[in-house]
Amino acid sequence: MVVELVCVGTEILLGNIVNTNAAYLAEQCAGLGLSCYYQSVVGDNAERLKGTLATALGRADIVILSGGLGPTTDDLTKETAAAVMEMPLVMDEHSLERIEEFFRTRHLEMTDNNKKQALVPQGAIVLDNANGTAPGLILEKGGKRIILLPGPPNELCPMFENSVRPYLEKLEPGIIYSKTVKICGMGESKVATLVQDLIDSQTNPTVAPYAKMGEVHLRVTARAQDEKEAKQLVKPMVKELKNRFGADIYTTEENVTLERAVVDLLLANELTVSTIESCTGGMLAARLINIPGVSEVFKSGYITYSNKAKRKVVGVKKSSLHKYGAVSEQVAREMATGSAMVTKADVTVSVTGIAGPDGGSTEKPVGLVYIGCCVKGKTTVREYHFTGSRAKIRESSVSAALTLMRRCILEYYSETTFRS
Amino acid sequence: MVVELVCVGTEILLGNIVNTNAAYLAEQCAGLGLSCYYQSVVGDNAERLKGTLATALGRADIVILSGGLGPTTDDLTKETAAAVMEMPLVMDEHSLERIEEFFRTRHLEMTDNNKKQALVPQGAIVLDNANGTAPGLILEKGGKRIILLPGPPNELCPMFENSVRPYLEKLEPGIIYSKTVKICGMGESKVATLVQDLIDSQTNPTVAPYAKMGEVHLRVTARAQDEKEAKQLVKPMVKELKNRFGADIYTTEENVTLERAVVDLLLANELTVSTIESCTGGMLAARLINIPGVSEVFKSGYITYSNKAKRKVVGVKKSSLHKYGAVSEQVAREMATGSAMVTKADVTVSVTGIAGPDGGSTEKPVGLVYIGCCVKGKTTVREYHFTGSRAKIRESSVSAALTLMRRCILEYYSETTFRS
Repeated sequence: MVVELVCVGTEILLGNIVNTNAAYLAEQCAGLGLSCYYQSVVGDNAERLKGTLATALGRADIVILSGGLGPTTDDLTKETAAAVMEMPLVMDEHSLERIEEFFRTRHLEMTDNNKKQALVPQGAIVLDNANGTAPGLILEKGGKRIILLPGPPNELCPMFENSVRPYLEKLEPGIIYSKTVKICGMGESKVATLVQDLIDSQTNPTVAPYAKMGEVHLRVTARAQDEKEAKQLVKPMVKELKNRFGADIYTTEENVTLERAVVDLLLANELTVSTIESCTGGMLAARLINIPGVSEVFKSGYITYSNKAKRKVVGVKKSSLHKYGAVSEQVAREMATGSAMVTKADVTVSVTGIAGPDGGSTEKPVGLVYIGCCVKGKTTVREYHFTGSRAKIRESSVSAALTLMRRCILEYYSETTFRS
Repeated sequence: MVVELVCVGTEILLGNIVNTNAAYLAEQCAGLGLSCYYQSVVGDNAERLKGTLATALGRADIVILSGGLGPTTDDLTKETAAAVMEMPLVMDEHSLERIEEFFRTRHLEMTDNNKKQALVPQGAIVLDNANGTAPGLILEKGGKRIILLPGPPNELCPMFENSVRPYLEKLEPGIIYSKTVKICGMGESKVATLVQDLIDSQTNPTVAPYAKMGEVHLRVTARAQDEKEAKQLVKPMVKELKNRFGADIYTTEENVTLERAVVDLLLANELTVSTIESCTGGMLAARLINIPGVSEVFKSGYITYSNKAKRKVVGVKKSSLHKYGAVSEQVAREMATGSAMVTKADVTVSVTGIAGPDGGSTEKPVGLVYIGCCVKGKTTVREYHFTGSRAKIRESSVSAALTLMRRCILEYYSETTFRS
């Protein structure tokens, strides 16, 4: 079945709010195996809303509308949908009681325009709103369905979970199942080249690459009658991708980020970690500390932005700073080994680079970054050339540092080999 | 003039990513005085994209498309737009050189599919991409305009600022001029209450509040024939807002962020700074180090996530940790004063709190954060109660720390008083 999303609200058209409802509804619908080919946003304007709704109904079986169910006169989604479906509005006594109760329990005065919210298209399925006044509505006619949901996410999401999903699940058996193969330290084009044959010949499952900062995700998606069948379709493709990308895949779990994978690796090997950052100025530590429970492995972090701090805090040699400069393979090495001495952490990671916009030269351009990683005395330093803004160079450096940490730990403990 | 936004990407239709580009472009277009009545999202599918683009061109003067300019075969926005405008694709040597240079400076191998990105519709205006390979494009024909932008926000936003905005500004005489009054440390509803009378009676200029993390921005916008006239309309309103919010306004400059304002204050008073973070784990230092030139004031940063690190690195007393706990007014104070002793910085800032999701208790719930700021021996500690996810609590803490630093420095050097 085909679903289409229409979000109603002038505040979305003006860019005052980000349309998170569309992302939420899209993800939910995809999970239910519904195909979605279009999303639209239209303002609180009867004529344009009517046109958009008619177009959507023309090409989809189900149209989900969100927003414009409020009590004020510029909220007219319900009126428009009722007109399109030719269903007159009638007072729903159950909703009226619920709205009156809503105001009573909150010791708030109910205004006349709130009564408008209890009007429903005749014959509609009414969905109670546990977190607000406007009820949700399902309108069915001639094989088409319109689902009306309130705009505030804290009303929309629970209503979807509790009422809309069970309703949709009954409409069609079949499901969509996805698994994401996450690769770090390899560019999008290189990944795409390595899977082009799979993409070219794909039917079910499909493979789609998504570029993230310092990562590429390959999403394998299958359609099937049930979850078991879908998983069986996805499994051999994931296996094939594992063969092709090997250790460069850091996870196939949906909720595992790169920093989570690194922290898991530290926990699994009972390793403590310290960071020592110059140009990233705490961003690497901040990403590791995103992970709840990192306290078991994180010893301490240092931000040594100045040369003086590099010398004083982790004992980088004055002569090295003088001879090679702060942004050099040698200084990255001394930062990593120095912090291992100072903090006694098993793994130490150093970042020193030129994030720009100033401070670059011909030999050392903006974007030159050295990252060092010391695992129990074995130190690796790599040179990187990043491009883009100061912010992007710093973010790229953090992703590269996490990738290098992961690689150095794996290489220390096994014979793991990497493609990239 | 009427603009319409079309975002291209199966990942948006599947709900894998939130469509922040639409919000950004919508806000920018509204700021330029362009009317936007529709936004659409369509997948990487030639036929559906063609239909959507034709519909958009039928009802708007300008269609802005984002996404689908990547190197892979499923990226076909450019091909579709060129077909709709009947402009054949030709190799753009300048873009080809830029893309080759992009790979060369990164020491990356350029694959054949990257060459595809240098193909442009004949006669199109080419917009250089400072942060990626795909150039932006402007196609003009028969009074209609299509603007193609890359999907990644870090490529799209700078390209809009640098190339698209100046292009759009020239299209229509009369201008829109805005000035933003940025307030820190005061909630949105309080700010809104204090300006409600101005919003109710507004015509030209208008005042609109925007809530940001830990900040509220009031955007004053005027329409006029030329910049001089617009500035004269905006000026008295900004003056009125300055009267109402006083020192809680940290800037009225478009490109000054809160961290920039804090760094400017440090530079102006020749003060050095050190940070000492627990739950924010480097995020505060990272935000300060966003500012180029911070090296003149930033001494060093410490991330003392564990109790041991708090004791060892900045000498927090074991007895204080035992008696009051790591998340306490006393420990925040000792972290700030201890790092002043260790680093000899003029200003030290400490953050200790419970970011969750675990670790909270009845007396010390998740979201409880203490922030200390020591300016030349005078220490202030404040208690905060934040809500939301671990990430949100940490970000709120960083904004609050910057706000407190600004306030403590201003209070140390002057008789500044704050409303909030």
